[in-house]
Amino acid sequence: MLIRDATPADLAAIVTVFRDIVADGETYAYPEDLTDEQIAATWMEPPPARCVVAYAADGTDGGEGTFLGTAKAGPNRPGRGDHIATASFMVSPAAQGRGVGRALAEEVLRWAIEQGYAGMQFNAVVETNMAAVALWQQLGFSIVGSVPGAFRSKHHGPVGLHVMYRQF
Amino acid sequence: MLIRDATPADLAAIVTVFRDIVADGETYAYPEDLTDEQIAATWMEPPPARCVVAYAADGTDGGEGTFLGTAKAGPNRPGRGDHIATASFMVSPAAQGRGVGRALAEEVLRWAIEQGYAGMQFNAVVETNMAAVALWQQLGFSIVGSVPGAFRSKHHGPVGLHVMYRQF
Repeated sequence: MLIRDATPADLAAIVTVFRDIVADGETYAYPEDLTDEQIAATWMEPPPARCVVAYAADGTDGGEGTFLGTAKAGPNRPGRGDHIATASFMVSPAAQGRGVGRALAEEVLRWAIEQGYAGMQFNAVVETNMAAVALWQQLGFSIVGSVPGAFRSKHHGPVGLHVMYRQF
Repeated sequence: MLIRDATPADLAAIVTVFRDIVADGETYAYPEDLTDEQIAATWMEPPPARCVVAYAADGTDGGEGTFLGTAKAGPNRPGRGDHIATASFMVSPAAQGRGVGRALAEEVLRWAIEQGYAGMQFNAVVETNMAAVALWQQLGFSIVGSVPGAFRSKHHGPVGLHVMYRQF
């Protein structure tokens, strides 16, 4: 697996996975009707934020092959809150269960610590997204609290959104 | 006290109180260097959000007089999270302790309930802002959780940010 900074050439792959995952209705509270430009503005934020992409090393030239997923990270708040990072992750549905989310998270955590952030906060982890909740807990995050019914899951109806946090 | 929807003519009063309160460094994690246009985009959001202003009824014609404060409210998240409202409040430093925040909050809560929101979430209440925390608790909000040290208070150093929530 190869993880690197995203470039404009990655937008087509990002918008495909973004739309698939938002339409799935289980993990993200983004609108379903965003244009490519709006997805780029939402997901591929300029510095101090960072957007990365993961590809399988299965290309015919031994290099980049199948797009596996993407992550973004940056300050959770501006101003007097910009010492705490946040991050978001999307793994291609075809690549789930293969450690892509964990690899992206480890890279994002490494980067955030290197950048000098004091911790990382997730603002809205869907409580029924058990794989994500378990992964974040394995990576040192705790559930700070949960807002009941704050996410309308496509299959489960109203479910809670966890705020999760890891101090560095 | 008169509370009504903000108009572009209120921008000058809003930017003054916005800058005073952000510079005070105790309650909001906004950048200190926003232009008038950026403050307008941040605070005077278009529908479905709403921005209101409060004036004292001390005008020479018996109508609007001193600007007292402002609030904004709208969906806390887009998409599958847009049934939960959020809101933010700024009371002019000269008008604090006179019930302006409570009056603005009561109007915003009335509006949010009328709009059909299922609850209201505050994402970042500074834990040392005791007046705000107490007011929100009096108005039915509970502390869902707190992210330690997530706000760099000008006078207290790193302090926690509460997530607070009230179900309607």
